[in-house]
Amino acid sequence: MSSSYPVVDIHTHMYPPSYIKLLSSRTSVPYIHQPSEPNADPRLIILASDDDSSRPKSSRGRPVDSTYSSFDSKRHFMSTHGITCSVISLANPWLDFLEPSSALSAAQEINNDLENACAKNNSSSVHAGLKLYAFGCLPLSAPAKDIVSEIQRLKSLTHVKGVIMGTTGLGNGLDDPALDEIYDALASTSTLVFLHPHYGLPDSAFGGPEVIAKSGHVLPLALGFPLETTIAVSRMYLAGVFDRHPKLEFLLAHSGGTLPFLAGRIESCVAHEREFIVNGGQKQGPQRSIWDVLHSNIYLDAVIYGQPGLKAAIEAAGSVDRVMFGTDHPFFPPLGDEKDSKWLSVESNKAAIDGCLPKDEAARRQILGGNAVRVLGLRL
Amino acid sequence: MSSSYPVVDIHTHMYPPSYIKLLSSRTSVPYIHQPSEPNADPRLIILASDDDSSRPKSSRGRPVDSTYSSFDSKRHFMSTHGITCSVISLANPWLDFLEPSSALSAAQEINNDLENACAKNNSSSVHAGLKLYAFGCLPLSAPAKDIVSEIQRLKSLTHVKGVIMGTTGLGNGLDDPALDEIYDALASTSTLVFLHPHYGLPDSAFGGPEVIAKSGHVLPLALGFPLETTIAVSRMYLAGVFDRHPKLEFLLAHSGGTLPFLAGRIESCVAHEREFIVNGGQKQGPQRSIWDVLHSNIYLDAVIYGQPGLKAAIEAAGSVDRVMFGTDHPFFPPLGDEKDSKWLSVESNKAAIDGCLPKDEAARRQILGGNAVRVLGLRL
Repeated sequence: MSSSYPVVDIHTHMYPPSYIKLLSSRTSVPYIHQPSEPNADPRLIILASDDDSSRPKSSRGRPVDSTYSSFDSKRHFMSTHGITCSVISLANPWLDFLEPSSALSAAQEINNDLENACAKNNSSSVHAGLKLYAFGCLPLSAPAKDIVSEIQRLKSLTHVKGVIMGTTGLGNGLDDPALDEIYDALASTSTLVFLHPHYGLPDSAFGGPEVIAKSGHVLPLALGFPLETTIAVSRMYLAGVFDRHPKLEFLLAHSGGTLPFLAGRIESCVAHEREFIVNGGQKQGPQRSIWDVLHSNIYLDAVIYGQPGLKAAIEAAGSVDRVMFGTDHPFFPPLGDEKDSKWLSVESNKAAIDGCLPKDEAARRQILGGNAVRVLGLRL
Repeated sequence: MSSSYPVVDIHTHMYPPSYIKLLSSRTSVPYIHQPSEPNADPRLIILASDDDSSRPKSSRGRPVDSTYSSFDSKRHFMSTHGITCSVISLANPWLDFLEPSSALSAAQEINNDLENACAKNNSSSVHAGLKLYAFGCLPLSAPAKDIVSEIQRLKSLTHVKGVIMGTTGLGNGLDDPALDEIYDALASTSTLVFLHPHYGLPDSAFGGPEVIAKSGHVLPLALGFPLETTIAVSRMYLAGVFDRHPKLEFLLAHSGGTLPFLAGRIESCVAHEREFIVNGGQKQGPQRSIWDVLHSNIYLDAVIYGQPGLKAAIEAAGSVDRVMFGTDHPFFPPLGDEKDSKWLSVESNKAAIDGCLPKDEAARRQILGGNAVRVLGLRL
């Protein structure tokens, strides 16, 4: 891949040192466990399904090596894959688990760390071809006024180009009316929200923990994550969040979970729902078409690992202008010793872009980077 | 729409009189409740989420009028929409709820009813332009030998072209090794399985019953149903069912739930799953690519209500030859008084086919009917 045009990775995670320290101080999910064996990598246990008490902590979760917290590793990954800019974000579960009293200061510290690391990188002549920006994190367990103040403060951090958020919001989901004040702040500051799953589905949805365990992380990761995102956004839509906040902008992880595929079914179910029958002249339920919301309020990443999904994402987004390349780094690494070569996970996402738009180089470049530059206002 | 080529509806439900009688005799889900008010339609309560004890039974579930059990209504619907053949199937939850001792005889009675109704229709000169075939039902709660014997017997019913099945199988999901005997019988008799959801997801996946209730049936129906199908098929795939039964053929309701969209992510998660690392030369986990299974073992209906989903379905199926038109009749009826006009739910599925393949009439005709004629061996 040439670097004659920007290739921007908008889905790429980091665990800054302050966040590693925080997780290492904990013994319940999410936490980092340092095995006693010499030279063993610490283990990161972030999902409830990772924390299988039938196995030793030293084999729970996944190894968390330096790729999670090292900017040098991030730049090495970028160089290997021809990525010219990464918009880094704290990985799940962000700060969702913090006590209200400590959330604001933790968010400020991490956001400042991200801002400073990006600023230092971008002003260094050594890394001239590799730019870094960030999505900030919000202290969602803190009082609303603190959340709003951090949203406003982030506008002064010139390398922070939006915020990453999970699906629980203040604890009751993204359709919680208590979020209206937060959504107002996000919309009025034109802050893009990168919505990312973490909690998945209840084990019983898959047939219970024993069924899940037979295929490792596949069911929670391949299905639980995207279904969580789909449910969260659908709840927002059905509750009229996008009616009340027509300028709210969300970037959905993993190409929207399954929203592009199911949008037609959602639209049909709404149109056929007796609870929403016109009542005294006022139609109940969402006032806008799901397609209108997809075309006006939603961006999708291109982390979908195949042409069928990416075609649906582009089609549902209404335009190639609303879909953006991402990698999910440092997750989905090669399992073998080929860590210095190109990653299958990245190459399959790139191949899907090439395969969907074989004759439209301009569109491919928009997805690979042009859209992120325009939407996030990146200076490359 | 012209009737110069076959238009086959492969997703269309019926409640034969014997099934209505069975449901009317019950007071727990699934059941039919006859309100005491004069002229009130009976209410059909088939989902746990329908059986809301905070409201009177007369307003739970949905009205079950004659469209559910009347062949005249089915033919009227077919005529209105230019459908020349319907492959009718018992609606969910089929016979999943029966005691083992009564399941076989119930299945035989219903399958014979369906066979006879189709035979009578197809030999009648009055209904010359409207043909009926059926998917049979299986007594899945009965002993395995009874299930196998009914699979074999169905081959003698010339209007039964496969079976409809839910996602629980014998009670433990479709990856249950105890199903191997059943899958052997299905594959060796070349019996197509129409896989249809019923159970949805646990309420907690949506945030609980109170969240669900705010938008009627939308969350369980728009998301729970397709996610149930996706999880069921993914469990089959991960457990190697399609490795052990390479000739098994499944037709997936609602364009595969979300499988076409998520197949790439499933493939990537399998490729990156440490539990599946090559062990002594033998790779663990599924041996075949999910794409190979989609292209060899799976057909998809076209009940997806939008172009983005249908494009992904066609792309994931590998060919327009594996996607088949359906309506989901008598569900998704118009809510108002326009029951004699064309249904929005049907028209949106037809519009998606037209929109996806605007310049390929041959492909549109394959999806609208040609594929069903070929795959099911229909005589029109």
